[in-house]
Amino acid sequence: MTQLATAPRARSGGRQARRALRTAPKFDMLPGLTGKIPLCEVMDGAQVERIDNASMDILENVGVQFRDPIALEDWKKAGAKVEGELVYLDRGLVRELIKTIPSDFTYHARDPKKNVRLGGRHSIFVPMTGAPFLRDLDDVRRNPTLDDLAMFHKLSHMMPALHSSAHHIVEPYDHPISQRHLRITYSSMKHSDKTFMGMTTSPKNAEDVMDMCAILFGEEFMETHPVTTGNCNGNSPLVWDETMLGAMRAFCRRNQPVLCSPFVLGGANTPASVPATVAQLNAEALSALAYTQVIRKGAPAIYGHYLSTVSMKSGAPMAGTPEISLMNFMIGQMARYYGVPWRTSNTLGGAKTFDAQAGYESATTLQAVMHAGANYIWHSAGWNEAGMHCSTAKFIVDAEQCAMAYRMAEGPKWGDFDQALSAVPDVGPGGHYLGHPHTQENFQEAFFMPDMFDNNSIEQWVAEGSVEITERALNHARKLLSEYQEPTLDIAKNEELLDYIARREREIPAADELNQDY
Amino acid sequence: MTQLATAPRARSGGRQARRALRTAPKFDMLPGLTGKIPLCEVMDGAQVERIDNASMDILENVGVQFRDPIALEDWKKAGAKVEGELVYLDRGLVRELIKTIPSDFTYHARDPKKNVRLGGRHSIFVPMTGAPFLRDLDDVRRNPTLDDLAMFHKLSHMMPALHSSAHHIVEPYDHPISQRHLRITYSSMKHSDKTFMGMTTSPKNAEDVMDMCAILFGEEFMETHPVTTGNCNGNSPLVWDETMLGAMRAFCRRNQPVLCSPFVLGGANTPASVPATVAQLNAEALSALAYTQVIRKGAPAIYGHYLSTVSMKSGAPMAGTPEISLMNFMIGQMARYYGVPWRTSNTLGGAKTFDAQAGYESATTLQAVMHAGANYIWHSAGWNEAGMHCSTAKFIVDAEQCAMAYRMAEGPKWGDFDQALSAVPDVGPGGHYLGHPHTQENFQEAFFMPDMFDNNSIEQWVAEGSVEITERALNHARKLLSEYQEPTLDIAKNEELLDYIARREREIPAADELNQDY
Repeated sequence: MTQLATAPRARSGGRQARRALRTAPKFDMLPGLTGKIPLCEVMDGAQVERIDNASMDILENVGVQFRDPIALEDWKKAGAKVEGELVYLDRGLVRELIKTIPSDFTYHARDPKKNVRLGGRHSIFVPMTGAPFLRDLDDVRRNPTLDDLAMFHKLSHMMPALHSSAHHIVEPYDHPISQRHLRITYSSMKHSDKTFMGMTTSPKNAEDVMDMCAILFGEEFMETHPVTTGNCNGNSPLVWDETMLGAMRAFCRRNQPVLCSPFVLGGANTPASVPATVAQLNAEALSALAYTQVIRKGAPAIYGHYLSTVSMKSGAPMAGTPEISLMNFMIGQMARYYGVPWRTSNTLGGAKTFDAQAGYESATTLQAVMHAGANYIWHSAGWNEAGMHCSTAKFIVDAEQCAMAYRMAEGPKWGDFDQALSAVPDVGPGGHYLGHPHTQENFQEAFFMPDMFDNNSIEQWVAEGSVEITERALNHARKLLSEYQEPTLDIAKNEELLDYIARREREIPAADELNQDY
Repeated sequence: MTQLATAPRARSGGRQARRALRTAPKFDMLPGLTGKIPLCEVMDGAQVERIDNASMDILENVGVQFRDPIALEDWKKAGAKVEGELVYLDRGLVRELIKTIPSDFTYHARDPKKNVRLGGRHSIFVPMTGAPFLRDLDDVRRNPTLDDLAMFHKLSHMMPALHSSAHHIVEPYDHPISQRHLRITYSSMKHSDKTFMGMTTSPKNAEDVMDMCAILFGEEFMETHPVTTGNCNGNSPLVWDETMLGAMRAFCRRNQPVLCSPFVLGGANTPASVPATVAQLNAEALSALAYTQVIRKGAPAIYGHYLSTVSMKSGAPMAGTPEISLMNFMIGQMARYYGVPWRTSNTLGGAKTFDAQAGYESATTLQAVMHAGANYIWHSAGWNEAGMHCSTAKFIVDAEQCAMAYRMAEGPKWGDFDQALSAVPDVGPGGHYLGHPHTQENFQEAFFMPDMFDNNSIEQWVAEGSVEITERALNHARKLLSEYQEPTLDIAKNEELLDYIARREREIPAADELNQDY
């Protein structure tokens, strides 16, 4: 059990604690979620084994391409059959390797009170990353800067249901690409004391992130404590490339968890079948998960994926479709079958503006990943236009939606059931509860009141200026930013980080072509 | 088993059938849904019994007000303790009464191919009803007319996932309120051959609906076949009024099912607690369900509810909140515990326009009711502004969302798993599947492609005029209406219906104050 999982929750501490909670700043982070609702398991045991068996057949007979000489050498030493770049993985070897992946672990934050647990029923919400554009505080779509990135790190710090400030939520275009990972990492570390992600845009960049984490947390601490996470995308079908594998090694060697994420465009790079897509994705994820244990036995790792289906009319990736929900349910079952924490993507969508399409896509995805029981719920705020832009307005609304989903996943609260029931005879047929002491004492705890939804009458809404959700959310973002307080970063560590960045920026040519973004 | 449940599905008939399906008009109705994914049951057996016990305590000790002399007489005869308007229901009596409610039944449509089954895992989508305003084909908000109502009945007829044309989707303001139920019922019957709902705005109006159904289906047929459904709202807490009870009697006596729907504004007319709200709602629903069996033993009846939570800031009802999802899960469990089909509300929300708020609210509600396993999924298209308007654009999008949820609820399809897997070695690492025969043969069946979501690049989207979802949906509505074909209504029956309406309109004063709308 982690510190957080056993820490007393303010809300269970009676009247005074509840009152304190009501008046507390609303941007206190929610503890990592411990889900309590039953999960949506759409496969029976035989079907889970059918997927497992199909994936193992793929690994044994079709093989996986590791486009990386070091990985190929590693695999040979580990006893795999290697032919050219193709690695054939025996199911016995795969099972032996993945069994040393921890089934859950604590992900450490700069502020230990914000440590979170991952695995089993423990989940976290992480904002979107990687957007080449943003829609800013005026809803204008443009290329982002380091200041924009800092803004999103500040908002991540303040939104209660976000458990991470991630990394390059938006790509800071005002800084050379080859040096960008340094500024991104520093921005994550400085503007928030929640967990954050590490860049994996190249093996060298990943090493820089590891070095910066060592400054912040201590080299030795990292050896036994995950303090960041890196994402490594696969090239489906069945390919892992040198950039991703090199970054994976940088993280695994320092005991830092990697998200092993096949990149699925269902129907384009997988078969046109939900179970067969899951079987291929599962084979891909297993091959990378197994490799993490070749790199370092016992290193934490996360079963990942990026999941879309493809429109056969336009070739465009889709989100919020029923098959994506079903595949999430199934992948959750597979990850639990192997006992490995798993990552999914939240609030995906292809809408160009923050319109109703964006709302449907995001909410459908959010609900699916909650019922699927995902642990590392990435892209939980801001994603729009297939990830091409991060919307400031949507960031705020998504983050509140996560808080609502969090509440749902906790299940009904029975603590005051008898007390609440005793209000029924007090009020009696035809009465009302608003003035009853139990109502007055408990309403805020009982029913979530979303700030971003307007539920007033149209007359009142018009009288208040007909403010739609985009404007409401942007107003809220401005208010949050005006109240932002930077969490104090140790002065010595801060200087050491800045020195490191300065040194590396002297060493890395600003136009280094080896440092391509992914 | 109904005719539909055993009828061969075109999609399971191999290559030729699949091709036929692809070229078939997209507005063929989907058969009633038979859900296959596991349901989200957030209570264990002991908690279900705890709710049951609390509800029975309320019925025995707090009592329910039946503001209706006939009902009070009926209850006395049935053996209940009656004091003034308060009826105290012994749990033995309640259990005895509700056990004759059919656990599932077939709901008959004018076209028998469109009959649908209700109960157990059998579900239907029914559009919204009761809106005093619409947003029309130009997205203008105004009072509706009979022509507007006809438009929604036509769209209901053409949207595949809608299994009903309901009744007063919008209120036709161009017709006297006292006579409106006649024209509404006729419009439902004439413009669609799917199932429809019957007005319950007064006992007399309900009798008129029964008479019109007798013309359409035959008096004798109705005695053994449900051909319409009526909704009776309770006044929470614990009150049923004369209008609703009179309408209930009109339906039950003719063996037509009534939705027994407590009207919950959580926190305002129920305790500020999720389980206690469910306990009160359950008591209310049970009291009405029991009364249906006093009226006519064995008559079909539906466990209903309207469910919102109330903002304690503004007093406004909210939708898409986590507690509404949880209460849906719990009510589903209670209805299944009693073996009674149950109704919920879909796509609720308080947005004033078809904006992102509307999308989040609707999708969250839709996903919750699917995981809750609701049978009669009402308000499934068009609802916005807390039901104050029916949005034409949202109607189209919601109906497509229902088709997507339908697909999700069917679960993954394993039929072609081995065939799909055989494409993996064909394509191999780094290849792509778009040209593979299995993909070409199966893509449309494998992955849902929503027409209302735009997933093109922003460049292409701009080049095509930056069309947002509202405009896309309205264009689609116009196209559907241009292709609408009225399902032929038997000439003799049509004349008899028109004669009936003409006679009743002579009999009912246009300004009859007794015929107030609800």
